[in-house]
Amino acid sequence: MRLMMFEDGGAVKLGVVENDEVITVSGDSIPADLLGVIEGGQSVLVAVQGAIAGGTRKKLADVKPALPIARPPKMICIGLNYALHAKEGGHDIPTYPSVFLRMTSSLIAAGANVIRPNVSEQLDYECELAIVIGKGGRHISEADALDHVFGYTLFNDVSVRDFQRKTAQWTPGKNFDGTGPLGPVVVTADELAPGASGLRITTRVNGNTMQDSNTSDMIFSTQRIVAVLSEFMTLEPGDIIATGTPSGVAHARKPPAWMKAGDVVEVEVEGIGVLRNPVVDEV
Amino acid sequence: MRLMMFEDGGAVKLGVVENDEVITVSGDSIPADLLGVIEGGQSVLVAVQGAIAGGTRKKLADVKPALPIARPPKMICIGLNYALHAKEGGHDIPTYPSVFLRMTSSLIAAGANVIRPNVSEQLDYECELAIVIGKGGRHISEADALDHVFGYTLFNDVSVRDFQRKTAQWTPGKNFDGTGPLGPVVVTADELAPGASGLRITTRVNGNTMQDSNTSDMIFSTQRIVAVLSEFMTLEPGDIIATGTPSGVAHARKPPAWMKAGDVVEVEVEGIGVLRNPVVDEV
Repeated sequence: MRLMMFEDGGAVKLGVVENDEVITVSGDSIPADLLGVIEGGQSVLVAVQGAIAGGTRKKLADVKPALPIARPPKMICIGLNYALHAKEGGHDIPTYPSVFLRMTSSLIAAGANVIRPNVSEQLDYECELAIVIGKGGRHISEADALDHVFGYTLFNDVSVRDFQRKTAQWTPGKNFDGTGPLGPVVVTADELAPGASGLRITTRVNGNTMQDSNTSDMIFSTQRIVAVLSEFMTLEPGDIIATGTPSGVAHARKPPAWMKAGDVVEVEVEGIGVLRNPVVDEV
Repeated sequence: MRLMMFEDGGAVKLGVVENDEVITVSGDSIPADLLGVIEGGQSVLVAVQGAIAGGTRKKLADVKPALPIARPPKMICIGLNYALHAKEGGHDIPTYPSVFLRMTSSLIAAGANVIRPNVSEQLDYECELAIVIGKGGRHISEADALDHVFGYTLFNDVSVRDFQRKTAQWTPGKNFDGTGPLGPVVVTADELAPGASGLRITTRVNGNTMQDSNTSDMIFSTQRIVAVLSEFMTLEPGDIIATGTPSGVAHARKPPAWMKAGDVVEVEVEGIGVLRNPVVDEV
């Protein structure tokens, strides 16, 4: 199933996406939002499926996407997870993933403005597959990891490179307001290959392909990432894990291809969809 | 005013601390929790003050503290903010703060168990002054910063050193379950010197003083930290900012003085109080 949250008449609603339509689903056993569906588990998914026939249909193009989860309990990011991208940044191939975090204040919905801050010109794109945790847990083995994955969505880990490198900790460059496009659609895990591997992943800026790889090139697989993270922290329903970006980012190009106001950046993963955002200057 | 959240008969309640008592405050204009007080601003603080006379008093020693804010919107940490601590870790004196983040899953209340994980023996303490943001904002100047501070509390940035250094990103070693003691009391800013400077800050393990410094030794002051963080992200009411730890941590001692099951670790900042937690092994 393909699920999303969208704005409709001032409210934010849960919808099921079929082809070019979004179907509003509601009813006694249907939660108000996607986090509720995730927390509800299989029986709620069945109820949502059953409500599709009676739902109201709108054209996808006519609705405004909202964040699939407004405030994920955790927003965890993996860096340097594609070999060529690690190399283009001057890093060795890692044996343990680089883990960094985002605060929800940086997240924006599909269609919302990516904001180029006044303090930097070094605004970069990063297409990423994002894991949505279903069942929480700690010390999850690689063998069990996929039982804990609800589905997958898209993330653009927009980075302000000079702030990322102010110190060894990447936090500032990864947490500017308006730099975390997420969504719009969450695809349940059953619709994709195990671990969402084997999917083409691309970034386009103004229609030009800037990154073009495949999720099979991830150094740390979905299963491995869930195992590594849950070794130290309890994963919770609705946690989002962005799995890193392939080569082709702006800062590794000569000259760097920083994004600027007026650009439109699109992240696409085969079988999940497109995450499109315009870029504007901070006012 | 000194405020805390505590467990009482299965519920978590808001209380005002006076000497060795906690006073339950309630009423139409009194929020259910401390985050509500922070969001409510000055008029709510006045209402809380007015409710003290009619409140129920309990001995502090008889109540179980809860986290002052169960899920802070953001939990931001500053590293290497005391010169001697930077040096003991082999770092230069920084010109920009090291900023890292915690997920709320690592936070625990005063009195709750700090958990030494099975995967590491390198469990370290770090006493820290923590800023509690009152009025949110972006691009806050140093001159205006203190207008955005609601108060101060205590944080023990318990670190698993080998996991902190798996890669250049400190996230794993700073996010183990059961490693983020926070609280118990939040002291409003008016009760302390501007920026909470000039306060003795100490850690004791089993009564032995392991860290002993003064918040005046912070390289980046409260004002500067608020300005630096709000340059890239919007601060929100209830955000917590831990301001770094002085020298004397376990990993810099020869031999290292790692904490172990049975230890009791206390963080104290003059004028704020004591944050005391026992250490247990992961089961």
